Amino acid sequence: MAERFFQHVFPNGLTLLAERMPAVQSAAMSFLVPAGTSNDPADAGGSANVLSDLILRGAGKLDSRELTDHLDRLGLQRSSSSGLYHTRLGCAALSSRVMAGLPTYADIVRRAHLPEDGFEAARDLSLQAIAGIDDDPKQKMLIALRERHFPFPFGRNSLGVESELKALTVDRIRQDYAKRFHARGAILSFAGDVDFITLKSEVERLFGDWDGSPIITLPGKPAVRGVHHQDQQSEQTHIGIAWPSILETDPDYYTVRLAVEVLSGGMSGRLFTEVREKRGLVYSVWAGYSSLKEVGSILAYAGTSNDRAQKTLDTMLAEFQRLTEGVTPAELQRAKTGLKAATIMQGESSGARAGAIAHDWFIRGRIRTLDEIKDAIDSVTVEKVNAYLKANPPGPYTIVTVGPKPLEVGR
Amino acid sequence: MAERFFQHVFPNGLTLLAERMPAVQSAAMSFLVPAGTSNDPADAGGSANVLSDLILRGAGKLDSRELTDHLDRLGLQRSSSSGLYHTRLGCAALSSRVMAGLPTYADIVRRAHLPEDGFEAARDLSLQAIAGIDDDPKQKMLIALRERHFPFPFGRNSLGVESELKALTVDRIRQDYAKRFHARGAILSFAGDVDFITLKSEVERLFGDWDGSPIITLPGKPAVRGVHHQDQQSEQTHIGIAWPSILETDPDYYTVRLAVEVLSGGMSGRLFTEVREKRGLVYSVWAGYSSLKEVGSILAYAGTSNDRAQKTLDTMLAEFQRLTEGVTPAELQRAKTGLKAATIMQGESSGARAGAIAHDWFIRGRIRTLDEIKDAIDSVTVEKVNAYLKANPPGPYTIVTVGPKPLEVGR
Repeated sequence: MAERFFQHVFPNGLTLLAERMPAVQSAAMSFLVPAGTSNDPADAGGSANVLSDLILRGAGKLDSRELTDHLDRLGLQRSSSSGLYHTRLGCAALSSRVMAGLPTYADIVRRAHLPEDGFEAARDLSLQAIAGIDDDPKQKMLIALRERHFPFPFGRNSLGVESELKALTVDRIRQDYAKRFHARGAILSFAGDVDFITLKSEVERLFGDWDGSPIITLPGKPAVRGVHHQDQQSEQTHIGIAWPSILETDPDYYTVRLAVEVLSGGMSGRLFTEVREKRGLVYSVWAGYSSLKEVGSILAYAGTSNDRAQKTLDTMLAEFQRLTEGVTPAELQRAKTGLKAATIMQGESSGARAGAIAHDWFIRGRIRTLDEIKDAIDSVTVEKVNAYLKANPPGPYTIVTVGPKPLEVGR
Repeated sequence: MAERFFQHVFPNGLTLLAERMPAVQSAAMSFLVPAGTSNDPADAGGSANVLSDLILRGAGKLDSRELTDHLDRLGLQRSSSSGLYHTRLGCAALSSRVMAGLPTYADIVRRAHLPEDGFEAARDLSLQAIAGIDDDPKQKMLIALRERHFPFPFGRNSLGVESELKALTVDRIRQDYAKRFHARGAILSFAGDVDFITLKSEVERLFGDWDGSPIITLPGKPAVRGVHHQDQQSEQTHIGIAWPSILETDPDYYTVRLAVEVLSGGMSGRLFTEVREKRGLVYSVWAGYSSLKEVGSILAYAGTSNDRAQKTLDTMLAEFQRLTEGVTPAELQRAKTGLKAATIMQGESSGARAGAIAHDWFIRGRIRTLDEIKDAIDSVTVEKVNAYLKANPPGPYTIVTVGPKPLEVGR
């Protein structure tokens, strides 16, 4: 049987990953370049986000319009975004089309034009998005929660800082591109109908001589944390709660994931049942494990009418605390089934797989098979979960609320 | 070769559809029941939305908690929503699990408990969502645009009307359930690893004696349309524009779809290029064909800073008008590639296929193969598009804006 996975690290530090999915005709690409919000220059937050737009405005022999037309003509379903660690470029289509688009992606990350008028337009869009946050109290709360809970630079808002964006120049952004768009730390992954040998030689041809300078990291600063309220005349109060947890590479990772699944997985999760179904307190409530490479955390959210906000916060904190009393075997079984079902469904989507193997490599330095993940989930026992929860009570909490009045914590 | 599609209409009016996807282990189910916003009682808008929550709070031999636990234990990835025509219940998992869940879905649509306390909680969630609209100017605009552009009852807000929800009783909602949750007009579709013979006999066993009363429709009222502004102190102005178009069953359907694709498909669409890329006017802009069974329309949206709102509206209207001058062969080719690529990618997802074959049946009374869709797209010529666009200039427009000040139309 042919191998399912392929991985190769080129001398310049570029990692190529691929997963063959025999059942599909399509292929998906996910390209992570190590220019993200966490390594934006200290005084120029939002640079990576501006670049994620600007790099598409002409590259290699194609101007902005030609580049877009060319990729549209190939029928590539595209996405681009800037994350905390990486700028991500994604595409999916019939496999041959994805391969045909690859030289253009090499131009984008290596030979982008970064034109001055394009810079002005891209920066303007960032500034508009920042202004728009004020109309969106939920987003405003989530930004503040991350900024306060995570140590700098991991809580930075990917949209950037208004004053810093205004001070940004096209020369500065061009220097930044030269510094951060390079091979070391870049991960290029494919899933679907792919041929490993062709892929490797094509990637070598296009990226073999790409600059391999070291990855940039910023010095850290401790997190602010604590309780914080932002006044906003709104119909709903938005509540965010975060607390520290273990890293994704920790042996207890699935123990924690399954405990969080009991709290908030599926419709039978405790938060959904207690806060939404039984008490009708909120329209939306969830908790989830947040995976950063350096910091593991649990983040939770609820949006609720102002008169029920205090009761909602109290109920959420009580549910978190109740975790220390443990979960039942039936709850754990459902949590396992839910997590495994999500894993199986993901295994049938080339886009999801291309993203998952890149994430695995970034966090763990290797690809995991779906069977390995399923085994890891199955090996967690109720004793293990309950011992962990007893020894690791939730907290200390970072709490952010946005609404017309502050709430009381721990009354 | 085994057949790919299966369809059967039972004597009581229930339609069973299935598509076999040999490459996948999973299956997805999409269940459309003919209780939607458009046939909510005339004085009880929002009833279907309340029911879409309430039906899951206990059914058959299972109470609310047991029902949720049971479906979670099967590992079903679930969704439920109320649309204009239908309440939709969806799930996906390993094929055997989806089949194992089917008896519970029969209980949900036929033998829901509809408990009083569950009714209060479900209604409360609807009322909270309505109150939350005020914090979301974009959603507020889109609701107003649909209400004004579409003739009653097709422009109704699925969340309902506050005063009508407050007057609703549990008895009323139980009568409504008995009246609208029935076989005639219901479409139950599956895609993935499914066996047609087993499926048919199981569905016959569970639904063969389901009530086959006629579908309810409300008398229509003409649309208001025209230009409308809602004052809101917000950082951005939200602009919505709609105009009439042909039905999805019209022979010119793909002619129109491709013209709209030239306007707003991919990154090379005219709106994206002219409004966002060149002028940096907006953060988000799009236009799309809106498929209702009785009314075809084009809907367009832009969200922009207040000082650029007038210029954005002017540019959008100019772009719509410019369509009458026709599209270029290169534009049409890109539009075809984009539309076909989306079709191919959809063909690999069991969830997307289960939804697509149900939509086809509802709109056209039959299932189309992906090849038929690709042929229909390919058969459109640039002459055909341009003749259509010349003969059918856009308009008359329904325009809704939400922001701190009204805009001028057609200055």
